Amino acid sequence: MAIPPLAMTPALQQHLQAWLQEDLGRGDLSAAALQGCRGQAHWLSKANGVFCGGQLAAAVFGLMDSGVTAQVLVNDGEAISAGTRLLELEGPAAALVGAERTALNLAMRLSGIATATAALASQLQGSGVQLVDTRKTTPGLRVLEKYAVRCGGGGNHRMGLDDAAMLKENHLAWAGGVAAAVAAVRAAAPWPSQVIVEAETIEEAKAAVAAGADGVLLDEFSPDALQQLVPELRGQAQQRGKPVVLEASGIQPDQLRLYVSSGIDLISTSAPITRSSWLDLSMRFTG
Amino acid sequence: MAIPPLAMTPALQQHLQAWLQEDLGRGDLSAAALQGCRGQAHWLSKANGVFCGGQLAAAVFGLMDSGVTAQVLVNDGEAISAGTRLLELEGPAAALVGAERTALNLAMRLSGIATATAALASQLQGSGVQLVDTRKTTPGLRVLEKYAVRCGGGGNHRMGLDDAAMLKENHLAWAGGVAAAVAAVRAAAPWPSQVIVEAETIEEAKAAVAAGADGVLLDEFSPDALQQLVPELRGQAQQRGKPVVLEASGIQPDQLRLYVSSGIDLISTSAPITRSSWLDLSMRFTG
Amino acid sequence: MAIPPLAMTPALQQHLQAWLQEDLGRGDLSAAALQGCRGQAHWLSKANGVFCGGQLAAAVFGLMDSGVTAQVLVNDGEAISAGTRLLELEGPAAALVGAERTALNLAMRLSGIATATAALASQLQGSGVQLVDTRKTTPGLRVLEKYAVRCGGGGNHRMGLDDAAMLKENHLAWAGGVAAAVAAVRAAAPWPSQVIVEAETIEEAKAAVAAGADGVLLDEFSPDALQQLVPELRGQAQQRGKPVVLEASGIQPDQLRLYVSSGIDLISTSAPITRSSWLDLSMRFTG
Amino acid sequence: MAIPPLAMTPALQQHLQAWLQEDLGRGDLSAAALQGCRGQAHWLSKANGVFCGGQLAAAVFGLMDSGVTAQVLVNDGEAISAGTRLLELEGPAAALVGAERTALNLAMRLSGIATATAALASQLQGSGVQLVDTRKTTPGLRVLEKYAVRCGGGGNHRMGLDDAAMLKENHLAWAGGVAAAVAAVRAAAPWPSQVIVEAETIEEAKAAVAAGADGVLLDEFSPDALQQLVPELRGQAQQRGKPVVLEASGIQPDQLRLYVSSGIDLISTSAPITRSSWLDLSMRFTG
Amino acid sequence: MAIPPLAMTPALQQHLQAWLQEDLGRGDLSAAALQGCRGQAHWLSKANGVFCGGQLAAAVFGLMDSGVTAQVLVNDGEAISAGTRLLELEGPAAALVGAERTALNLAMRLSGIATATAALASQLQGSGVQLVDTRKTTPGLRVLEKYAVRCGGGGNHRMGLDDAAMLKENHLAWAGGVAAAVAAVRAAAPWPSQVIVEAETIEEAKAAVAAGADGVLLDEFSPDALQQLVPELRGQAQQRGKPVVLEASGIQPDQLRLYVSSGIDLISTSAPITRSSWLDLSMRFTG
Amino acid sequence: MAIPPLAMTPALQQHLQAWLQEDLGRGDLSAAALQGCRGQAHWLSKANGVFCGGQLAAAVFGLMDSGVTAQVLVNDGEAISAGTRLLELEGPAAALVGAERTALNLAMRLSGIATATAALASQLQGSGVQLVDTRKTTPGLRVLEKYAVRCGGGGNHRMGLDDAAMLKENHLAWAGGVAAAVAAVRAAAPWPSQVIVEAETIEEAKAAVAAGADGVLLDEFSPDALQQLVPELRGQAQQRGKPVVLEASGIQPDQLRLYVSSGIDLISTSAPITRSSWLDLSMRFTG
Repeated sequence: MAIPPLAMTPALQQHLQAWLQEDLGRGDLSAAALQGCRGQAHWLSKANGVFCGGQLAAAVFGLMDSGVTAQVLVNDGEAISAGTRLLELEGPAAALVGAERTALNLAMRLSGIATATAALASQLQGSGVQLVDTRKTTPGLRVLEKYAVRCGGGGNHRMGLDDAAMLKENHLAWAGGVAAAVAAVRAAAPWPSQVIVEAETIEEAKAAVAAGADGVLLDEFSPDALQQLVPELRGQAQQRGKPVVLEASGIQPDQLRLYVSSGIDLISTSAPITRSSWLDLSMRFTG
Repeated sequence: MAIPPLAMTPALQQHLQAWLQEDLGRGDLSAAALQGCRGQAHWLSKANGVFCGGQLAAAVFGLMDSGVTAQVLVNDGEAISAGTRLLELEGPAAALVGAERTALNLAMRLSGIATATAALASQLQGSGVQLVDTRKTTPGLRVLEKYAVRCGGGGNHRMGLDDAAMLKENHLAWAGGVAAAVAAVRAAAPWPSQVIVEAETIEEAKAAVAAGADGVLLDEFSPDALQQLVPELRGQAQQRGKPVVLEASGIQPDQLRLYVSSGIDLISTSAPITRSSWLDLSMRFTG
Repeated sequence: MAIPPLAMTPALQQHLQAWLQEDLGRGDLSAAALQGCRGQAHWLSKANGVFCGGQLAAAVFGLMDSGVTAQVLVNDGEAISAGTRLLELEGPAAALVGAERTALNLAMRLSGIATATAALASQLQGSGVQLVDTRKTTPGLRVLEKYAVRCGGGGNHRMGLDDAAMLKENHLAWAGGVAAAVAAVRAAAPWPSQVIVEAETIEEAKAAVAAGADGVLLDEFSPDALQQLVPELRGQAQQRGKPVVLEASGIQPDQLRLYVSSGIDLISTSAPITRSSWLDLSMRFTG
Repeated sequence: MAIPPLAMTPALQQHLQAWLQEDLGRGDLSAAALQGCRGQAHWLSKANGVFCGGQLAAAVFGLMDSGVTAQVLVNDGEAISAGTRLLELEGPAAALVGAERTALNLAMRLSGIATATAALASQLQGSGVQLVDTRKTTPGLRVLEKYAVRCGGGGNHRMGLDDAAMLKENHLAWAGGVAAAVAAVRAAAPWPSQVIVEAETIEEAKAAVAAGADGVLLDEFSPDALQQLVPELRGQAQQRGKPVVLEASGIQPDQLRLYVSSGIDLISTSAPITRSSWLDLSMRFTG
Repeated sequence: MAIPPLAMTPALQQHLQAWLQEDLGRGDLSAAALQGCRGQAHWLSKANGVFCGGQLAAAVFGLMDSGVTAQVLVNDGEAISAGTRLLELEGPAAALVGAERTALNLAMRLSGIATATAALASQLQGSGVQLVDTRKTTPGLRVLEKYAVRCGGGGNHRMGLDDAAMLKENHLAWAGGVAAAVAAVRAAAPWPSQVIVEAETIEEAKAAVAAGADGVLLDEFSPDALQQLVPELRGQAQQRGKPVVLEASGIQPDQLRLYVSSGIDLISTSAPITRSSWLDLSMRFTG
Repeated sequence: MAIPPLAMTPALQQHLQAWLQEDLGRGDLSAAALQGCRGQAHWLSKANGVFCGGQLAAAVFGLMDSGVTAQVLVNDGEAISAGTRLLELEGPAAALVGAERTALNLAMRLSGIATATAALASQLQGSGVQLVDTRKTTPGLRVLEKYAVRCGGGGNHRMGLDDAAMLKENHLAWAGGVAAAVAAVRAAAPWPSQVIVEAETIEEAKAAVAAGADGVLLDEFSPDALQQLVPELRGQAQQRGKPVVLEASGIQPDQLRLYVSSGIDLISTSAPITRSSWLDLSMRFTG
């Protein structure tokens, strides 16, 4: 199934303009050497990976100057290799030069995330366990970085503090226990909001299911511990007549495979975002 | 010498608010479990590295709620190790929880850059060659990421397209040669702006000096090639009565040391920004 | 349980400033008659209802001038009657006059919604059926109007198009049926997002449960039809091992009580927002 | 005479984008079910009333996606009835669905105001007394709600605190009387600004005319009281060689007709804005 | 009578922040030489004139850093001479240096306008004719520049296109004559809005009064022509029972005095804004 | 060489919209007289000077309404005389009227600066000394006013506090001397940033060169003093192997010619911006 395109909301368009502005400042000094010139260029990959950011890059060039035409040659989420041609551009030379860095910076960062996600997700392929991200994202880029995770074959956890409630140790302490915390949140939240409890012990996990949590995040449990705990929690949930989503976290990226048969639904990890390098892409001018 | 503090411009303060907003969305659902509670927390490092983002984190909490007090325990640019206590916080529980992720995401990203910069800069220590960054920065974070490079012991290259002119192959072609390109930019730019030419061949490098460029970026030259070329360029510049800044780029991070005695002034590299992992920091609630 | 306070996010604070600005324009002309004066004032209710907007009003006055002190006398969500004193204010006369209308407009609109919600919710009291709102909200005021619904004893449906997916007749047609539509959305949405299907016929409702929808909105079904349909859907869901939230809509406000024993979970209605009058509140200057 | 079109100022366009953004949030989740589809739709009225918001709705869809074509079938200010077709739309399905609620919310609110205004204004038809609005408008929507009043056949009172000065009891007290207050404002205000005094007693009304007020708002006077007072004030004004605009306020909506022959110029009432329901409009997808 | 203080609206505060940002850019480079220093400074006038911008300057420093204390020694609108001390400042050196230029630029520009206004207004002193400004103002500074005109003893004409209607030759042509144009505007405008007609001939002026215009701008009429025309227009207005404001424009600044006895009410001129020099003010650091 | 065009950055486009909005407010009241009309107009110069602002004016009309076509007849930087036709416009009458003042205000202000710059620069023609501006610019217009200086034949000094470091008396005092101040700034600034020292005495000037300053601003030195000092400073710089840019300031506009042979590189003056009148331009409607 193709990756649904990124929503070009008014907020995202304002971000793109702000990012162009960040690089342009009071205006590209080198433009004085480009007066009246038009040019052609294309993007090439210099490495193997998963591409992300084609339509976004085209939008950046279009916002720089509506006289630029951009043709995206590779869909977001597709595998590329060193030498793959990604984008064709034509337009005023000053616009091509002025938007080049902003567009590349976005696509290199996002492609790096997609590539890293794909590498991790491949460990879980066929297992029924899905890799999902976290809220550890670069400030200002959350929607884009989470889109890159989807392009790499991962799934998204909640988008922000308002998108589901995650109750941690301190919430439980302040609210006076799991049941009280879950009840307080349910009473105030929109009905479709899910309530997730982070559990660090077996007892907390069971209390979370007992309190009717929609999901339980099992933090830093070993594969063995999970293999014993998960069926118990599933049984407990079934008795309550309501399934529970079980998520493991705190797992080293190279150990994901050990959790494939633990019965959990999700593994959440920030690694594709916090430990990935940018994918090396470049822009070549051809006239 | 202490790192001069980050300028808290109106633009940066607006960024911090926008980044808080990105995570808060329509409001933290979990706050319903925290009504009326106050709490205390501190930040701990979980890894070795160079810290960056203390005052910034304090500002984030202060913008979230002016009733939060934050005490920064470690200056930006200082070395830290796993277990170092970084920040003390006290305030309304909902504010501590609501700003936690935004503040940590910033500081982890910036500390990761500072740490990576320090590792690379140490290769050049005592050599008189300075490590500088590039314009490959995360959109929206340029000022911060370049500050992190300074905290790690690196220097900054230009901040944007308006901060100096860098003339590349395509500029030279469109303008009709190095001399024409340099002249066009000088005529239009504020007088303190420097003009740099990117050279990929020995001939281009010499033409750049001849055209009066303030700096020449020598891209993908070998250490041997530089050892021969640099003295020639220095001599050429001396004859013109004006020094030239010589910068090498396109060097693999693990090969920096090979360039120590090449006579260049600067090595520019995006590696601390494009190839670094976030430094692992965490926030602990103590009541 | 007290209503959790409204989240004063950066976005909301910017809204409050923009709304003050809307009334102030190039500056209150009448301020020329108030130079140097300080004043006292209080708010009175002129009608019976449920109050909403006290802290918000205090924030508006504080943003107008940090020298205004405001004491809120009645919590949001409390019943008030004609003559109830709501707020005490003291500060520069020009600030009290300049923010008066903006603050009152907000509180009168929100209290009107809370009052209307309470009247409708009382029809359902003790029934286990919850009244929830819709996305029919005044542009720019969604977070506030939905907060007012909570203050009146109602619950909130999703906050926006990104807060849960609601698949309607046209989605199903375009996607090629319920199952395809639900699958496409699940694949792309963050895992905690719920998928709801709007059903206008018995067949659609059953297909929705079969497709694994988390909720089914039963539009314009009669109480009798629901009494037969709901148990069937519950049974179907139980067989799938996953409960379904059943929501009725398209009900006239004066007929809510007829649905009390239909077995549904929720009644969604826009009436408290689209058919309510503002609650009559006024500000009296006492010096 | 046709209603002059609403001014599409930069500020209004920014509002429309912000309102779209409010509903879209991080992106419409249901769009994943609509990839690549185009659709057609139209708007229908489900009730009788006065339409307002056609061009505005078209602008909302256009801002959502420039690929949407919208044809407005009914002018703002025209009477419509249940079944009237209002708008034809064609474009990408995701854009039609994504902007639907924002556009409808605006038009339903504004048409509700226009409809309520028309009902009240009809009481005054042919009388020479004009119905005007007040500053009781929904924060953020003042320009639009006042436009809707015009579409319903009413007139507008001042647009904000800077658009004319209205001096109330407290202004007079602080400034040291009517004459002092009027003089202070005139001295500081742009010359075309009118100064209006709110009078609650006969004496205040006369003092206002004596002070040269351009308008006097007669608050909560009975029809009988006005029939005696108005000619006196007119005479007083004539002697000063300058007419005065007399405005009555504080009148119950169902009693407007009693004031038809009182000699006043204006009746100001917030009822079309604070006591009206939204007009029921809907969007139908036809492919 | 003291000049009423400038309204510090949210919009004005945002302007001040944007103007600081314009000068600060990515941060004051010289701040690296000022780490940890505090300083004292004061402002001196280096010329004779009328001061304007004291509170504004204080606000600029306060927005730069809340740790700066500013004491304004001279009220806006007061005469100053070379050597007058205007402002005392104390605070972090980096803040004093960082906001200096922005604050001075504002106050020098505004004091220049106030000074030029006072010079022109003195020509009209005691004549009953008031000097007013126009809409020829620097983009972004209209509210401030018009405030400076008031500080110099002038009055303000309308603040924008929405603050009164001025119908010029082309309006009259397009609308089909004066009467039609005035009627169209009155029907659509808020009732307190005044309608002014610009007349270039005697016939147009009379037609304007006949059409019920509130004001007539008599453009480029000679003093002699006015002395004959004004009484005729006054008589015509009296017959209609409504006074008319008569305004002369197109007068050279050095000829204002010739119009003193022409019977007009206002002379509008852009000269204080379009032909004035900045008043020379400076900031001295004393430690 | 033609003046390179002004960079139409996102920030500049937002400024243009904000400036239109400033004049339009809640909407041009006179537009009610222009419904459905289209018109033609052109701009004429009413004075001799140097034009600046043609493309900018065209952009303002285009942002007002994309249905306006604007043809610029004179390039920025060209000499014009009374009667020169500058711009042709066609479009909706309401758009032509609505944007007229904003566009003219910009172009009149900028052309006034260009004209004043040209007059001063002509004093230096052929001398090798360049006239440059300062940071005394109208808040919000710096980029535009400095562009106007270039159109008049001047050059630009730094664009803001981040574009080069200028160390003044107080910096030197706080930092502990010239050498310390220069070193602190160099260590923190991007490498291409230049460091300039303002000198009020011969000793300070020599210390600045000794400290390696890139430029020295010689404030209020007489032509004679400079003729002696400049060669000394040049010699001192040559010995250090690095040229120094020498700039004179504090010169009365009518005395520039006296400095022609003093050997300096630059004369900086704010006169074209702080002491110039707007150039008189007008817009004529022709149908």
